[in-house]
Amino acid sequence: MSDKVSAALVLIGNEILSGRTQDANLKYIADSLSAVGIVLLEARIIPDVHDTIVETLQELKTGFDYVFTTGGIGPTHDDITSECVALAVDQPLELHPIAFKAMDNFYRKKNIEFNEARQRMAKTPRGATIIESTASIAPGYVAENIIVMAGVPKIMKRMLVDVIPTLKHGKITQSMQLHTNLPEGVLAQPLTDLQSRYPQIDIGSYPQMTDGNGFHVILVSRSTNTSALAALDIELRKMITAAGGIFDLDAKPELID
Amino acid sequence: MSDKVSAALVLIGNEILSGRTQDANLKYIADSLSAVGIVLLEARIIPDVHDTIVETLQELKTGFDYVFTTGGIGPTHDDITSECVALAVDQPLELHPIAFKAMDNFYRKKNIEFNEARQRMAKTPRGATIIESTASIAPGYVAENIIVMAGVPKIMKRMLVDVIPTLKHGKITQSMQLHTNLPEGVLAQPLTDLQSRYPQIDIGSYPQMTDGNGFHVILVSRSTNTSALAALDIELRKMITAAGGIFDLDAKPELID
Repeated sequence: MSDKVSAALVLIGNEILSGRTQDANLKYIADSLSAVGIVLLEARIIPDVHDTIVETLQELKTGFDYVFTTGGIGPTHDDITSECVALAVDQPLELHPIAFKAMDNFYRKKNIEFNEARQRMAKTPRGATIIESTASIAPGYVAENIIVMAGVPKIMKRMLVDVIPTLKHGKITQSMQLHTNLPEGVLAQPLTDLQSRYPQIDIGSYPQMTDGNGFHVILVSRSTNTSALAALDIELRKMITAAGGIFDLDAKPELID
Repeated sequence: MSDKVSAALVLIGNEILSGRTQDANLKYIADSLSAVGIVLLEARIIPDVHDTIVETLQELKTGFDYVFTTGGIGPTHDDITSECVALAVDQPLELHPIAFKAMDNFYRKKNIEFNEARQRMAKTPRGATIIESTASIAPGYVAENIIVMAGVPKIMKRMLVDVIPTLKHGKITQSMQLHTNLPEGVLAQPLTDLQSRYPQIDIGSYPQMTDGNGFHVILVSRSTNTSALAALDIELRKMITAAGGIFDLDAKPELID
């Protein structure tokens, strides 16, 4: 197990940027990676524009342990992810023998033509490893440190579950949270002091609007060091009480609107 | 009105990347910009890490007409957006006289201390324009081509509504969609032909899983050229019928899972 394993995520497709669809993949991927100690440090949503995809992948693959992509691996003209990944890892795009054979069998049994468009889905950059998965007959794959997955959420989720055991895992970040009725303007100074005394913890302060246009604040502390988190927890409670506030350990349903 | 106005969006904050919260801002911003002909070409979600924010803003502000940011403009230690924007536009961060005066009056009336933490929210890069808005007493602002907004969805939405009339608008992209029962493997070749004959239209093909693990496909065509869209619409219907499929003009509720 490595101490720290980092990742970036690239959601490829025009439909989220146009506002037509609500992204349904990012939170699931972020959650799944957190659970095995892979830290998602950046996510990008880009259109299916050839140069944008290639440049984004080239930039991110050198900066992170893993780059996950979703979308653009179907058979239609707007599915250009694989040819871009091939350029990013500097390998030719070619029929993957394992994927080709599986798909050929599949379509033969169903008596469906394994036409040129469908064969595009069997192409990967040379040297890629197919993700063994029941998600879809058209495979996801790993090329260098780029993990290429489908965009359809149900398929992507299954591919992610199947690829995660094959990846390096890191130390798992624990988190704890406290809700308080104090405004951020009161919390700011004591929180700054606590953050400087606990540099190994990432303390976040998230104001949420409540029904009556009031606020409450959620303090989220994240670290791989659980004993430091326990010590900070006691100090946060003291701080809130000292400032005349109350804290609430129960995670209320969060208002995101 | 310019023909094409482009934008990038930067969502700043750790809570989406950790999987703790579901993003609630991107789709609203994408929708709002589309409606006035500002084309969102990229979105990034980055943590509140100083260098990451500065470098991201420096990169994006030269590539797009506008860069929108959300998050990180509150009073606490993890609110570092404004100091990063100041570096990105190479201006000192200082108390904005209009914001300072409004906030000073506000807190005075409420008998709340206008302390140092709260005064941080009155700081902007020199030369910034405050967004006139009832969204919040702590303002959003425009620095060069960077539009800095709050992260709390309710406040962000109000700021966006108030800033949009002050921006350049472009030609509005129209979209139309057709649902069909044909699989992408059948649609791929005729769609490729149509896309090459209508280069001014962006044709997207989005497979969606249906209840019985089947698929249907949504074809979304987007362009600023409405007469080309109308011509394409007829051809798409003919194509679907010729391939033995049916099309459905009613936008079914989309399955995103």
